[in-house]
Amino acid sequence: MKTDKLELKAGERIDDLQRNGLYIIQDPKRFCFGMDAVLLSGYAQVKKGGRALDLGCGNGIIPILLSAKTEGKYFAGLEIQHDSADMARRSVEMDDLTGRVEIIEGDIKNVREYFNPASFDTVTSNPPYMINRHGLKNPGDAKAIARHEILCTLDDVTRAAADMLIPGGHFYMVHRPSRLEEIILSLKAAGLTLKRMRMVYPYADREPNMVLLDSTRGGNSGMRVDSPLVIYKEQGVYTDEVYEVYGY
Amino acid sequence: MKTDKLELKAGERIDDLQRNGLYIIQDPKRFCFGMDAVLLSGYAQVKKGGRALDLGCGNGIIPILLSAKTEGKYFAGLEIQHDSADMARRSVEMDDLTGRVEIIEGDIKNVREYFNPASFDTVTSNPPYMINRHGLKNPGDAKAIARHEILCTLDDVTRAAADMLIPGGHFYMVHRPSRLEEIILSLKAAGLTLKRMRMVYPYADREPNMVLLDSTRGGNSGMRVDSPLVIYKEQGVYTDEVYEVYGY
Repeated sequence: MKTDKLELKAGERIDDLQRNGLYIIQDPKRFCFGMDAVLLSGYAQVKKGGRALDLGCGNGIIPILLSAKTEGKYFAGLEIQHDSADMARRSVEMDDLTGRVEIIEGDIKNVREYFNPASFDTVTSNPPYMINRHGLKNPGDAKAIARHEILCTLDDVTRAAADMLIPGGHFYMVHRPSRLEEIILSLKAAGLTLKRMRMVYPYADREPNMVLLDSTRGGNSGMRVDSPLVIYKEQGVYTDEVYEVYGY
Repeated sequence: MKTDKLELKAGERIDDLQRNGLYIIQDPKRFCFGMDAVLLSGYAQVKKGGRALDLGCGNGIIPILLSAKTEGKYFAGLEIQHDSADMARRSVEMDDLTGRVEIIEGDIKNVREYFNPASFDTVTSNPPYMINRHGLKNPGDAKAIARHEILCTLDDVTRAAADMLIPGGHFYMVHRPSRLEEIILSLKAAGLTLKRMRMVYPYADREPNMVLLDSTRGGNSGMRVDSPLVIYKEQGVYTDEVYEVYGY
């Protein structure tokens, strides 16, 4: 950890990622990464020497984790919220990842302003899950923007992913099972074909609360559904697989 | 069991359905129902006094089971293969279900020749799972027709289901997870919205080999994924839930 130039702002803290000596800056009032991001970074593949882009990277958790978990060459994160992008940049610097991980402040809808089309092998996203039903109390609030489709919709994300991927490149996303039908229709409309999917069940006998999706730009229909990923063996005790993803 | 007029043909046998004293005629060379049909008949709902149609009913297993499991008034089964439809009819007679269960010999693609559009509350189907890749050895074989899309495609099934359902009526289908993307696209194209889905895993740590789907004619997007349905606790031992569906 390089702490020589480290500046923490009010409300921020540093968390240990328990992997490759990496740390990350978080702010409970603005953005803290969840298990979703960790599971996505375990599901996504980045090939040796590959280039990966994370759409809506928040505090940079996915590009930072992927830089540790894969042999990719370059990891970009695009984030529209200034303060989150700034947190992410300071974490990249603290983790001595400058050059290998790059955080860009910008809008997913204008992704071509920042990157060339068809220039990534892998795209990832942990997008806002909830449809923006009117009447949100604080639609400008950092957490509301991360959780609700206020500044981007599902279609914006799938279109940007398809646009940035090389043909045959993979788009990995984590989302809510309640939106699975919409997700598949949105992927298809963007030119992405669902190839793999994994349901994440909090307990072995409960409804899933997350789904991991692996689609490719182009490709024939025909897919695999993975074995179930169960989070808790019993209350407060993760299953072995979850401990493995976390790298404990 | 009414056996007074019962005629079994060569190769046929009578199996006990272990429910309401029902029996069914099967022929291992032509058609025997599988767990798929049993699970689908446990997943499908038919309202009190409702009308249900099974598309591609084989030996009639689904209409016969639904007549026992629900309080529906009328259960129709449509089957294109003469010998299967004939077996189904003789089972209906043997089970004293004449009038409540009706087997029609005919083609799903011409469903309007046999039934009025929008005349069913529930439609079910356990259709052929496999795409008809050329080069099947015996494409006229009864089992090949039941398993491969030789005489009907997925789109034929979803279109017929949508056509027969009242607005808001439910279409229940069992299929292979490998075709989930195609299924959702096909449902949508037919005007059906996926509302519920359940993955069926042979063991708790394996990939699913079946998926149960509940869609409605019309309706808004937004769906539920159910808790995982696991078949075997250990080799040869069903989970309690599967014993329950079988009614043991």
